[in-house]
Amino acid sequence: MAEKSWNVYLSGEIHSDWRERIEAGIREAQLPVQTSAPVTDHAASDDAGTGTLGEEDEGFWRDHKGAGVNAIRTQTLIRDSDVVVVRFGDKYRQWNAAFDAGFAAALGKPVVTLHDGEFDHALKEVDRAAFATARTAEQVVDVLRYVIEGKLPA
Amino acid sequence: MAEKSWNVYLSGEIHSDWRERIEAGIREAQLPVQTSAPVTDHAASDDAGTGTLGEEDEGFWRDHKGAGVNAIRTQTLIRDSDVVVVRFGDKYRQWNAAFDAGFAAALGKPVVTLHDGEFDHALKEVDRAAFATARTAEQVVDVLRYVIEGKLPA
Amino acid sequence: MAEKSWNVYLSGEIHSDWRERIEAGIREAQLPVQTSAPVTDHAASDDAGTGTLGEEDEGFWRDHKGAGVNAIRTQTLIRDSDVVVVRFGDKYRQWNAAFDAGFAAALGKPVVTLHDGEFDHALKEVDRAAFATARTAEQVVDVLRYVIEGKLPA
Amino acid sequence: MAEKSWNVYLSGEIHSDWRERIEAGIREAQLPVQTSAPVTDHAASDDAGTGTLGEEDEGFWRDHKGAGVNAIRTQTLIRDSDVVVVRFGDKYRQWNAAFDAGFAAALGKPVVTLHDGEFDHALKEVDRAAFATARTAEQVVDVLRYVIEGKLPA
Amino acid sequence: MAEKSWNVYLSGEIHSDWRERIEAGIREAQLPVQTSAPVTDHAASDDAGTGTLGEEDEGFWRDHKGAGVNAIRTQTLIRDSDVVVVRFGDKYRQWNAAFDAGFAAALGKPVVTLHDGEFDHALKEVDRAAFATARTAEQVVDVLRYVIEGKLPA
Amino acid sequence: MAEKSWNVYLSGEIHSDWRERIEAGIREAQLPVQTSAPVTDHAASDDAGTGTLGEEDEGFWRDHKGAGVNAIRTQTLIRDSDVVVVRFGDKYRQWNAAFDAGFAAALGKPVVTLHDGEFDHALKEVDRAAFATARTAEQVVDVLRYVIEGKLPA
Amino acid sequence: MAEKSWNVYLSGEIHSDWRERIEAGIREAQLPVQTSAPVTDHAASDDAGTGTLGEEDEGFWRDHKGAGVNAIRTQTLIRDSDVVVVRFGDKYRQWNAAFDAGFAAALGKPVVTLHDGEFDHALKEVDRAAFATARTAEQVVDVLRYVIEGKLPA
Amino acid sequence: MAEKSWNVYLSGEIHSDWRERIEAGIREAQLPVQTSAPVTDHAASDDAGTGTLGEEDEGFWRDHKGAGVNAIRTQTLIRDSDVVVVRFGDKYRQWNAAFDAGFAAALGKPVVTLHDGEFDHALKEVDRAAFATARTAEQVVDVLRYVIEGKLPA
Repeated sequence: MAEKSWNVYLSGEIHSDWRERIEAGIREAQLPVQTSAPVTDHAASDDAGTGTLGEEDEGFWRDHKGAGVNAIRTQTLIRDSDVVVVRFGDKYRQWNAAFDAGFAAALGKPVVTLHDGEFDHALKEVDRAAFATARTAEQVVDVLRYVIEGKLPA
Repeated sequence: MAEKSWNVYLSGEIHSDWRERIEAGIREAQLPVQTSAPVTDHAASDDAGTGTLGEEDEGFWRDHKGAGVNAIRTQTLIRDSDVVVVRFGDKYRQWNAAFDAGFAAALGKPVVTLHDGEFDHALKEVDRAAFATARTAEQVVDVLRYVIEGKLPA
Repeated sequence: MAEKSWNVYLSGEIHSDWRERIEAGIREAQLPVQTSAPVTDHAASDDAGTGTLGEEDEGFWRDHKGAGVNAIRTQTLIRDSDVVVVRFGDKYRQWNAAFDAGFAAALGKPVVTLHDGEFDHALKEVDRAAFATARTAEQVVDVLRYVIEGKLPA
Repeated sequence: MAEKSWNVYLSGEIHSDWRERIEAGIREAQLPVQTSAPVTDHAASDDAGTGTLGEEDEGFWRDHKGAGVNAIRTQTLIRDSDVVVVRFGDKYRQWNAAFDAGFAAALGKPVVTLHDGEFDHALKEVDRAAFATARTAEQVVDVLRYVIEGKLPA
Repeated sequence: MAEKSWNVYLSGEIHSDWRERIEAGIREAQLPVQTSAPVTDHAASDDAGTGTLGEEDEGFWRDHKGAGVNAIRTQTLIRDSDVVVVRFGDKYRQWNAAFDAGFAAALGKPVVTLHDGEFDHALKEVDRAAFATARTAEQVVDVLRYVIEGKLPA
Repeated sequence: MAEKSWNVYLSGEIHSDWRERIEAGIREAQLPVQTSAPVTDHAASDDAGTGTLGEEDEGFWRDHKGAGVNAIRTQTLIRDSDVVVVRFGDKYRQWNAAFDAGFAAALGKPVVTLHDGEFDHALKEVDRAAFATARTAEQVVDVLRYVIEGKLPA
Repeated sequence: MAEKSWNVYLSGEIHSDWRERIEAGIREAQLPVQTSAPVTDHAASDDAGTGTLGEEDEGFWRDHKGAGVNAIRTQTLIRDSDVVVVRFGDKYRQWNAAFDAGFAAALGKPVVTLHDGEFDHALKEVDRAAFATARTAEQVVDVLRYVIEGKLPA
Repeated sequence: MAEKSWNVYLSGEIHSDWRERIEAGIREAQLPVQTSAPVTDHAASDDAGTGTLGEEDEGFWRDHKGAGVNAIRTQTLIRDSDVVVVRFGDKYRQWNAAFDAGFAAALGKPVVTLHDGEFDHALKEVDRAAFATARTAEQVVDVLRYVIEGKLPA
């Protein structure tokens, strides 16, 4: 009988290596996890609409067009996921990360937030709707290993 | 036959008078709208957990406790609403506003965002999931009047 | 004990008097029915976005903005309805009427189509998803009276 | 770990080669996409009911019978799909395409519309409910490649 | 505070006085119950389609047309109900009663079956999906009184 | 890319060879269909509860116990199915077949009924909720082949 | 505009006065709350099935019959509720209280648990799924007042 | 064509060998069943939160943190399951088992309870919501074999 493969969506910050660290940890722990994420190439993501469907004069509609194309990816992958990890970093406002957390929570998906303590108060509603709040990418891997294999870190 | 009463939830920024302006506009236009909102008394909102269920030593759990109590209100009112207006201001990170937008969108609720143009790029995913983006509270009232009565501003 | 009030949404053609005829029939038959509809003032409907939220240079986005505002109304009223009547006339392409029918059908709402026999073949998939196909506004009233009061026309 | 295979349903016009062009583009780009569609043999589609379940005298019921059999296919494949592309061409009224778009939208499926600019105004409600509007089959492939692989056209 | 009014749908047999006995019992016990039912005038029910939408030559389509109109009523009222009572008598096959029971069960509605012991074996799957099986209309009233007021018969 | 495998649940009559004929037709046509069904060994089905969980004195509870065990199978397989075929024969009352049809319809599953013309009037509500009504097992295979491969019988 | 009336279901322990204390607090605070509960007359609740539908010889089926009748009430009221309060006392095992909490949580209802600290470890999974954990009936009233009126205790 | 693989979640008691006995029976009967369960290492389960996400001073929050991590596993596996078996033993209060039963029931999952007769009265509501109540692990295997293969024990 085939082992369950877990789909874990990694939402949020795209300017640090937290995804790579989680993926490295998953490989090292040999967890049956398939990760997915939004397009993390910032420039490509900003051009998602105009680069595929043609230019726009107005910034608002240029963004709107791109966000629609990005949402085809993100909403599909969130609906497909077993767990949604949402990372909040110190740059930018990352409202889309919080949006994803709300979207996932309303669908009944377990959300794991990942952020430093400095954001605890600002993120209290998001953290409350989450099933766990981690401080490091390594803790997220520890949570996944426990959730999937029942093993705690040594 | 009774006229439909519209429930409009007003999520987001709590440090400006945008809710009062929308409510004044609704009264002036005599729209059959019932508004609801999170608790907008910042101090009370922060004490929602400890003020009702007892003190906590740790800031994280103090926030967690309060956010749980606040969520009883906010999730219930969002589920009850016909339209969810989400306001993003220039103070604080307002991740809870974006969370509410995602939560509402996943439930199929029409979302109207309300923010200045300076946040257009940062909010593009949220605006794309919304049915309309307004710049002023008065525009929100204009949208509601049109939606309910089919009348445009003179 | 209060009698059930039926919400009937009247989707589709806005250039003939079919809604008025259904509403007159409902009044005459004294049925406990509350009708709702999209904004049927064609000019207002086209200006729904720009008239409330500000001008747009491009026709596509002008329409897009208006359609978003209109959708706040139409999707809310369709979700609130017990029965959705969809009228196809001989003018315009009326793709929004067919869209509403599909939207309502996926939500499990009983759809009644209203159109002439000349469109039978073109509308076969929509008619098949409907619970009834009427030829005249008076037949729709007859269906509603039967559905609500169990009485057939004399 | 297996790569996600995307199910893309291609709804609408059956008298041009847009499906073949999308499928050729998918093959060329080696995208992990499985396409599906209604039965596109017009004559077979019209005979779907009578050809399998026996003749009918009346045209309306002949169509009705066929549309029921076709709906077993189309509704199942739309429910199974990740993305629904809906093509509107210049022939016929294509109300079934708009119906499919409404059906998919109510299920929360990302819809991509594909049509020329001449239909922009008539399709504004459908386009607003869609996540993207493309002008050519090649743009649809570009959108799919970006959505799946995060790559924009060179 | 307003007392909850319970909607009870009475499905099934139309050739005995079981509905009247339940309704009399509800009145006598002064229960806050609003009953609804399919159209129980057998002749009207058979003519539901042709009497409202025009004649049909073929019996199958005549029935089909009528069943569609009847379903607007029955599916709407079942979706609106708190409890669905389904009566199986000794005449006719009453497949529509069993269909209603299955429909209600899949929606999570509490079903109460009402039938003589002679049908116990034939109805075992339906009874298992029900929350209670009654032998008499009076027992149904006793169940409703207990459910609503917590009172058992003296 | 893997071809979609269709799950077809075969509900109803267990005293004729209609399932074998459908399965033979599927094999002959080499359709990618996986069939499932209730337990069709009548004696085993009647003993489903007492044969696994221990004897019961009372007939009603013996049936109840068995029906619960059978429902684990039937409800799971219906939820897993793409299409539900429901056969009504001339023996027994087959209320469970009609129950399955109602259960499947409420879940949005396409239902195909299979029965002789003599039951048309008694089954009109069930047939109306179905997407197709077949007279022979071979017609069901023809429908499946068309639905899956788009091919009509020669 | 009418104030929202909150439906609060009070599940669990039936051998102490916690419900009366909550209801007294609601009255005193003049909150727009309508409470509901399972039948709290222990003897009546145990006889719910046999007292309405006739005697049973076997204890298991006697309980089964009663539990079915009770479930008509409890599941309906939980589905109708905005908030579900679940009380765990020191007597009996109260598995039905935990069952109600799980049922409510899966439906997305905000759950508030009410129990002494001695059960914290045993109830940790239930408390985690809850939005708040109270120690006294008065705290539940404080939570409801804050949730509804935004006011903290003095 | 691939045989359906059944996912069976084994909830409840972790201090006896009932899971091993069910799994041994499944292997012996060569059933296509994949079992899953909560983490059954009691110490690990208690440390699920602090062992992965860092220590806590307060017992309540230590439990809360752990229960959140455990819920990522249990809610995901229950949502993935075809059948949920819930075991109640004589140690501890096992409110989480009853919670899982309620959660599964609200999702429409067939629940099988497993417990001795001494708990029949205390578990009557849970047993009523279940599709079957077994006394031994072997009976659960018998039920699964019958459900999957239609075979009763010799």
